[in-house]
Amino acid sequence: MTDVKNYMLTLGKTARAASRAMARASTTTKNAALLKMAALIEAQADQLKVENAKDIANATAKGLDAAFIDRLTLSDKAITTMVAGLRQIAELPDPIGQMMNFKPLPSGINVGQMRVPLGVIGIIYESRPNVTIDAAALCIKSGNATILRGGSEALNSNQALATIVQAGLASAGLPAEAVQVVNTPDRAAVGELITMTEYIDVIVPRGGKSLIERLMNDARVPMIKHLDGICHTYIDVAADAEKAIKVCDNAKTQRYAPCNAMETLLVNADVAANILPSLCTIYQDKGVELRVDASTRATLEAAGFSKLVDATEEDWSTEYLAPILSIKTVANVDEAIEHINHYGSAHTDAIVTENFSTAQRFLREVDSSSVMVNASTRFADGFEYGLGAEIGISNDKLHARGPVGLDGLTSVKYIVLGDGNIRT
Amino acid sequence: MTDVKNYMLTLGKTARAASRAMARASTTTKNAALLKMAALIEAQADQLKVENAKDIANATAKGLDAAFIDRLTLSDKAITTMVAGLRQIAELPDPIGQMMNFKPLPSGINVGQMRVPLGVIGIIYESRPNVTIDAAALCIKSGNATILRGGSEALNSNQALATIVQAGLASAGLPAEAVQVVNTPDRAAVGELITMTEYIDVIVPRGGKSLIERLMNDARVPMIKHLDGICHTYIDVAADAEKAIKVCDNAKTQRYAPCNAMETLLVNADVAANILPSLCTIYQDKGVELRVDASTRATLEAAGFSKLVDATEEDWSTEYLAPILSIKTVANVDEAIEHINHYGSAHTDAIVTENFSTAQRFLREVDSSSVMVNASTRFADGFEYGLGAEIGISNDKLHARGPVGLDGLTSVKYIVLGDGNIRT
Repeated sequence: MTDVKNYMLTLGKTARAASRAMARASTTTKNAALLKMAALIEAQADQLKVENAKDIANATAKGLDAAFIDRLTLSDKAITTMVAGLRQIAELPDPIGQMMNFKPLPSGINVGQMRVPLGVIGIIYESRPNVTIDAAALCIKSGNATILRGGSEALNSNQALATIVQAGLASAGLPAEAVQVVNTPDRAAVGELITMTEYIDVIVPRGGKSLIERLMNDARVPMIKHLDGICHTYIDVAADAEKAIKVCDNAKTQRYAPCNAMETLLVNADVAANILPSLCTIYQDKGVELRVDASTRATLEAAGFSKLVDATEEDWSTEYLAPILSIKTVANVDEAIEHINHYGSAHTDAIVTENFSTAQRFLREVDSSSVMVNASTRFADGFEYGLGAEIGISNDKLHARGPVGLDGLTSVKYIVLGDGNIRT
Repeated sequence: MTDVKNYMLTLGKTARAASRAMARASTTTKNAALLKMAALIEAQADQLKVENAKDIANATAKGLDAAFIDRLTLSDKAITTMVAGLRQIAELPDPIGQMMNFKPLPSGINVGQMRVPLGVIGIIYESRPNVTIDAAALCIKSGNATILRGGSEALNSNQALATIVQAGLASAGLPAEAVQVVNTPDRAAVGELITMTEYIDVIVPRGGKSLIERLMNDARVPMIKHLDGICHTYIDVAADAEKAIKVCDNAKTQRYAPCNAMETLLVNADVAANILPSLCTIYQDKGVELRVDASTRATLEAAGFSKLVDATEEDWSTEYLAPILSIKTVANVDEAIEHINHYGSAHTDAIVTENFSTAQRFLREVDSSSVMVNASTRFADGFEYGLGAEIGISNDKLHARGPVGLDGLTSVKYIVLGDGNIRT
């Protein structure tokens, strides 16, 4: 057995043991740990920056780009946000122990459900040290133990944060092993984490498409995963033009990089000439490249547009995360729904319409984790949905779908209350 | 590409297409298909028996045992039960389209959830033709398409039933491809089914431990699985002796083969001498072999018992499904909970106690899909829980846990209702 395998098995066993204590922990105890972590981060901000500076120096020496360094850096603002996040999660209602749906049955038993932690959650993420704190906090509040495996370029920062998290847990009387940060950059550690079905109940992967695809192939532990966001907005024949322009501008241009930004605009042929020219003027003024089908090109050229790119088949299934938008003109809502279900990634899709029945059909038939009427796809987010926090946005259909908050890190078990009842 | 691979890909593609129509289907339409299936089974009972007789003859020639032949046989009673099941599922409330949890948020959007089908469900099961009808009916009612792969010894029976199911669907105007039965005994078909992530949303395996373990290793499609039932009852120091005896007798002896039958009895040391002699007299009178730890042996021998077997370490993690019971004397509820969480299979576990706080601790800390107070583990069942029907009992923590009814075959997506709202 290799050293890494042994090391990971030890993490798994201690996490499993710690998960029992976490499942029993009271709300007050869990909140005390979170608040202590917040206070320690504030008190030790300078030491954290010293450790973070080592990671930044290594990453810079490796020639990693500015965006990477930016995500890696524990700036004053990043530290303030982590601390605020901890206090915010402490204030959220505790999902654990909630009892619900009880009903007496003819046999005399009373059957209901109780919300309980999942157990041990493995989280795999990029070199973003703030995620260490967010993920630890969500797992603590939801009564889980967790094993965190951040990007190897953040190793020093993550170890410093792990020390603070474990001090916070210990000060509240909780086992320090409830949150463990993998201390080796060896990639074999991930391979172990995703196959230790005896010790890990669920894996939450955060990161690029290639990471997720690798995990989908190799993981034996169930995953709550975030694949990609190929989000659509369909402008229906019954759309209010003003709302359509406002919503579609926001969905594409408010920010380009988030997974809930629109990548493909579908527009009904009967309103294309009325709406597209104003909307596409906004896009081109903001520097958005437009990749269009033949019908859209005809509409826009008739209105005097140039600099249009022909969309290829590949464009319809591409997540740009950039100032690029593909546009297709469709005959009706059926074609729009079919296009979305075929090319989309089941993340977030919206319709702009004033027609009640068309809106109902779109809501029911689009097979995505979030479906919207007359709203920007950018709203698909745990905070905007009122969940208080999120660990990611799930493209899966099982368990948690869409933004995953504290409830997504829990399970429900059946509870049967009897008085000596037997089955006959 | 092999023929089997091609065949399964065709099933997958047509199932995916049919799933869109199923997701749109009204309750009336789905119920019409179910009721037509019931009528056709009644009308064609004789032909069904002819096809079934071929399977029985083959199985007999292969030397398969009486229990196997019994499960394979479409007796009059089995046919009546299938028909009644169809009519019962037609009467259950339709879960699809249910909208819930709406709340207005500060941004002006209104966020809620809608219950929707999972899409395409692959079901793998033993040579029990009645499961073909039960599984098809549950998938139809929950708006899913399904691909059914029954045991190869039931091939003729299943093809005859498939013809009836598809006629029922067609008569209601639904696509016949919404329910497809794999028509080849080639085991490679299962390998394809569990890896076609593009066309299959979830696999529900039903069958022995070896099947499930193979699937856990090879499947790439998520599973809702039923592993095994190592169910416990703990008789607490504060147990009512009469209830304890009644409940523990029923949990073990009402039927031996079901997964929710008790396999291990835990008894508090302070009440062992008071309760075990009466209870074990019942067990021995019914021919149940008792496998005991040293302390239990001492208690029972002092009361004049003989014919006791020493329990080995392996006994504590064995699902007997037979007239065998392991018994361990424990010091307190902590030891009982620890034993159950360590050796159990997270299926169903019960406590007998009159102490409120002990009951609360057991309910919260035992990490199983069903946890019971003063009731027989035999109640862990979709019908007994009022779900109306079940596709199986899930040992998983994600998605559906415990008995899985119609809701377990659905997902919820987020719905956002706006009026031109944008994110700022």
